[in-house]
Amino acid sequence: MKDGYLNELLLLLLSKKGSYVSGEEISEKFGVSRTAIWKQVNHLRKLGYEIDSVPRVGYCLKKSPDLLLPEEIIQNSCLEFLARKIYYYPSIGSTNDEAKKLAQNGAPHGTLVIAEEQTGGKGRLGRRWVSPPREGIWLSIILRPSMEPYEAPRITITCAVAAAKAIRKVTGIDCRIKWPNDLLVEGKKVAGILTEMSADMDSINFVVVGIGINVNNADFPDEIKETATSLKLAYGKNVDRLKILTEFLLQFEELYRVLEERNFEKILEEWRKLSCNLGRRVRIIGKNFELEGIALDVDSDGALLIKTDGGKVERVLSADVSLRE
Amino acid sequence: MKDGYLNELLLLLLSKKGSYVSGEEISEKFGVSRTAIWKQVNHLRKLGYEIDSVPRVGYCLKKSPDLLLPEEIIQNSCLEFLARKIYYYPSIGSTNDEAKKLAQNGAPHGTLVIAEEQTGGKGRLGRRWVSPPREGIWLSIILRPSMEPYEAPRITITCAVAAAKAIRKVTGIDCRIKWPNDLLVEGKKVAGILTEMSADMDSINFVVVGIGINVNNADFPDEIKETATSLKLAYGKNVDRLKILTEFLLQFEELYRVLEERNFEKILEEWRKLSCNLGRRVRIIGKNFELEGIALDVDSDGALLIKTDGGKVERVLSADVSLRE
Repeated sequence: MKDGYLNELLLLLLSKKGSYVSGEEISEKFGVSRTAIWKQVNHLRKLGYEIDSVPRVGYCLKKSPDLLLPEEIIQNSCLEFLARKIYYYPSIGSTNDEAKKLAQNGAPHGTLVIAEEQTGGKGRLGRRWVSPPREGIWLSIILRPSMEPYEAPRITITCAVAAAKAIRKVTGIDCRIKWPNDLLVEGKKVAGILTEMSADMDSINFVVVGIGINVNNADFPDEIKETATSLKLAYGKNVDRLKILTEFLLQFEELYRVLEERNFEKILEEWRKLSCNLGRRVRIIGKNFELEGIALDVDSDGALLIKTDGGKVERVLSADVSLRE
Repeated sequence: MKDGYLNELLLLLLSKKGSYVSGEEISEKFGVSRTAIWKQVNHLRKLGYEIDSVPRVGYCLKKSPDLLLPEEIIQNSCLEFLARKIYYYPSIGSTNDEAKKLAQNGAPHGTLVIAEEQTGGKGRLGRRWVSPPREGIWLSIILRPSMEPYEAPRITITCAVAAAKAIRKVTGIDCRIKWPNDLLVEGKKVAGILTEMSADMDSINFVVVGIGINVNNADFPDEIKETATSLKLAYGKNVDRLKILTEFLLQFEELYRVLEERNFEKILEEWRKLSCNLGRRVRIIGKNFELEGIALDVDSDGALLIKTDGGKVERVLSADVSLRE
């Protein structure tokens, strides 16, 4: 579904979910024939919507399918700048790649790119992110922050806090943040964040922050079986993707406003409480270095501070972290 | 002219410039008719090429027009990775914007985007770069360096050194570098560099480094009359754009190799010698700060080090600099 195109009938039925709307009302509202409405209803039924129709009474939306359609997001959330434009894809290569293209062509601050499936989902360092159809939330947000490039890691941290809070609120699961960009449940990866930017040396042109949340995955490919999990596996039953999604968007919008007010320390405070690294012994593997020590804190540039056994504090901007006992 | 398409006849005539090539030879070489050759020759003449044709002797390229065509660049330079692909435009909005789009779509390391005119040329901080047709060199280079985002300013510095060296070598003009991204002649701006990048938090996806060199501009719009100059104005006569361009590409390729060998200090040494800032009193205006002091040095991240009157050394990543007496 492309920018700007929304199914108005679906929006109407969603807003009156459980009640009947007469064919006459619909016909007058949109200036279309009864036959056109009937066709639309059947189209929605094909998508999986359960719509009851009673002659001379009207249509009633009984149940939505498990889809993250823009109409559902709009109906179920109350957002100011986020998701004012939504690009929805049943299947796409990578939402981050698509978002970067859209941003390059001028897509506004807050644009949401969401897909039911990614065939080429990406993690950090070019790693793959397994994104099977309808099992998780695979999305990217286009942001145009007034920031210098070195401040961009703040967006990853903000996104991690928003996602952890949303998961905790909807499911009660003890979801933790692992620096720099993962969310863990019971020590296994349940979500990952990939922040990309277009910038010159003075300022950011745009940021694309992508997140993949494993919601209802029942299993994982062999190579990540030991390290990955889903909310369903932790929760014991299916989790409502739309609830997680809309809560995440709400939390992210709220925190982003704090970021815009140059109040990043407030977000860091929340991050510290949700972190699984701080105060623990960690092993750091960077591009050209390795070190081990105690994770002390994260600083205002999003760098991890490690106290090595020699007592020196190292500042790490980019690396893989593993927790040691 | 699009990627991959080169005028083979022009390449042949250029390689034998001043000598006659028989119609028969051309016809056999490219498997085309004499009439087709005649049409091509007339097309080249319309571009401004002076081509002599003598019946039963052949064609002789006498003189090239003042154009930066890919065939001329290839014929007049000997480059390894740089300009293996060239995108040439008689007129374009901004070569940096075009290069970013090409890079997003996979254009390889070293791709050159060049235009005779920019209608929306850009400088730092969204400023305009006046780029009238055929008066200067307006180009962008796509690079895919193995670097972390904070190292990107090194590319600006490398490009500045390459351009200053090329201008000095071809014209003998005392061209100086003003941190962070300008080249000055007699205290006036003769060239500017705009480095942009696409990156995640761990590594750079691509860099686009753009440079605009005022070569044969005879005058400037009122608002920049006092601060801008051209090589022609400094040199007293027209300067060969192609010579400046090919020398710049050669210098840039050479220095880029030094950069790749992680030998940035060597480039900084050259930068220091060409700088007009170091050791001088400067006024710094950043986004949220202002300061005055002596410019001491540039560090390995490309930051300018300023000793303020209080004796403190400040590290400046992004700002405007003006020289004080």
